[in-house]
Amino acid sequence: MKKLINKPENFVKETVEGILLAHPKDLKMVNNNFRCLVRADEKKAGKVAIATGGGSGHLPTFLGFVGYGLADGVSVGNVFASPSSECMYEVDKAIDNGAGVLHLYGNYGGDIMNFRMAQDMCEMDDIEVEEVMVTDDVASAPKGSESKRRGVAGLFFAYKIAGAACEKMYSLKEVKNVAEKTVSHTRTMGVALTSCIVPQVGKATFSIGEKEMEIGMGIHGEPGIQRTELKSSDEVVEIMVNKIVEDLPYKNGDEVAILINGLGATPKEELYIAYRKTYTILKNLGISVYKNYIGEFATSMEMAGMSITLLKLDNELKELLDAPAYSPFFNQ
Amino acid sequence: MKKLINKPENFVKETVEGILLAHPKDLKMVNNNFRCLVRADEKKAGKVAIATGGGSGHLPTFLGFVGYGLADGVSVGNVFASPSSECMYEVDKAIDNGAGVLHLYGNYGGDIMNFRMAQDMCEMDDIEVEEVMVTDDVASAPKGSESKRRGVAGLFFAYKIAGAACEKMYSLKEVKNVAEKTVSHTRTMGVALTSCIVPQVGKATFSIGEKEMEIGMGIHGEPGIQRTELKSSDEVVEIMVNKIVEDLPYKNGDEVAILINGLGATPKEELYIAYRKTYTILKNLGISVYKNYIGEFATSMEMAGMSITLLKLDNELKELLDAPAYSPFFNQ
Repeated sequence: MKKLINKPENFVKETVEGILLAHPKDLKMVNNNFRCLVRADEKKAGKVAIATGGGSGHLPTFLGFVGYGLADGVSVGNVFASPSSECMYEVDKAIDNGAGVLHLYGNYGGDIMNFRMAQDMCEMDDIEVEEVMVTDDVASAPKGSESKRRGVAGLFFAYKIAGAACEKMYSLKEVKNVAEKTVSHTRTMGVALTSCIVPQVGKATFSIGEKEMEIGMGIHGEPGIQRTELKSSDEVVEIMVNKIVEDLPYKNGDEVAILINGLGATPKEELYIAYRKTYTILKNLGISVYKNYIGEFATSMEMAGMSITLLKLDNELKELLDAPAYSPFFNQ
Repeated sequence: MKKLINKPENFVKETVEGILLAHPKDLKMVNNNFRCLVRADEKKAGKVAIATGGGSGHLPTFLGFVGYGLADGVSVGNVFASPSSECMYEVDKAIDNGAGVLHLYGNYGGDIMNFRMAQDMCEMDDIEVEEVMVTDDVASAPKGSESKRRGVAGLFFAYKIAGAACEKMYSLKEVKNVAEKTVSHTRTMGVALTSCIVPQVGKATFSIGEKEMEIGMGIHGEPGIQRTELKSSDEVVEIMVNKIVEDLPYKNGDEVAILINGLGATPKEELYIAYRKTYTILKNLGISVYKNYIGEFATSMEMAGMSITLLKLDNELKELLDAPAYSPFFNQ
């Protein structure tokens, strides 16, 4: 296991300690618990708050998207493991501004169970909580079963849009609606070239040959749709983009935001080579790129690979996407 | 070779094509040559311009630091190879605002030769050119031989400070002076856990055992100062930071900017674990952290490892470091 870490059992704690030392004006703990983090700036009365969370090992997801125009608080689990409902409940209480809280997170069993328990606890405190689950991974369930799909890098668009809606003082119901619209317009597909290693496990999560890649693999190493020999970047991008575009009705003249996301070990050079092909395929379909994001947004530690996400835009989504946002990991 | 690329010989061209498609408002070519890139925004008469350049494979270095408050133009070489003097000369002509050009680049033989040939060509056109070479890698030559040291991630601080000085309309001599001061105050040390693979070579640049690391290794795989068994993050950081701090006179009360730079495959989590220890060591020495930068600034494609850079600050450097800057790869 080639990692620059100390004791594996301290991986998450020491990561968060480093983040809090580096960004004390941006993030703070609730109840001195490093697993419960919230924005450090002043709260805004009447603003809907967004809580998120999930397992560690995906930086900047999840905690990196706590900030202005994004989420307000986050619960931090162990690597690839859900945080506790108690932590989620403490975060909800800390971020509520009297206008309710949206639980915005990826569709994974442990997270669903715990966020719903926290929601029940909030109900007893008269804190209104709604939830929107992100289900953008087209490889994880067929068309028609969208609600069974996993949440991956497309979470970023949900944070960005819903977070901007909160800053514009949308009501809880309105924030929920626009987050649901974002999810319904977002599709992602990934490809993995190598495995990652969970620190406390100490060996690769899955094995993959020196000349193989897996198209559609999830960010925890969940099986994809095709284990194949290494293909060229253009070939891989074509498979991925076609699968994404087929999954929604697109027509000539549509506009999208593109996210080319590195899973950890993949150089930025390769992400731009993938952007080049993505752009060209879309152009040939009459789809134009309104905005692009290229870099690491949702990683699997040191996994090599990438994902491509398209968000189909309308005027409301464009306005919210363009709104300013800032966290220690994102600045627009 | 597990890379998401097309033909290896097209790696640089396709990378730059992707970047130009993604950021047309920020970067443009000179003479339709993808190896000669300059800022796409309006030029400012009388402003000193900064030209940089070097081999590819280090994104965001070099071309990612062309932008407002940073460099004005860049020459793009093949992977780990110097760009041509002709390209440098074309960039110099394109960015000159009548106040002269600073060649700001890392201390490597091919780059020196070509930048100096370009400087000679500019002289014949009456474009005044000065040069500052960045020599921040303490592992590459002993104390007393600072001018022989390689330039690595510390280049970022030179771009940031000198770029801010240009926007504040410093003269060419003044920009050169503050860039030289920045270099004389900057020290970096790296550690590598795995090799990278140059696309056109197709195999690892160097071999390193499954349980080994190399402290002090350069960003092209140049030999470091210690090949050793894998140590804990805290142990490695202690070796690196001590070596950096010993190299300059530091006293109680000094302030620094820290750059924790990932070499490519190292997760952000590990960079923050390293920041935590760096911060603590410095605190115990009475050195306080004025500002921190944590992420990928100068990579070696998919190499696993990191570097730590300290910039010792004074009031002028703090003011220039705090000035706004923007490129597609950097936003402060």
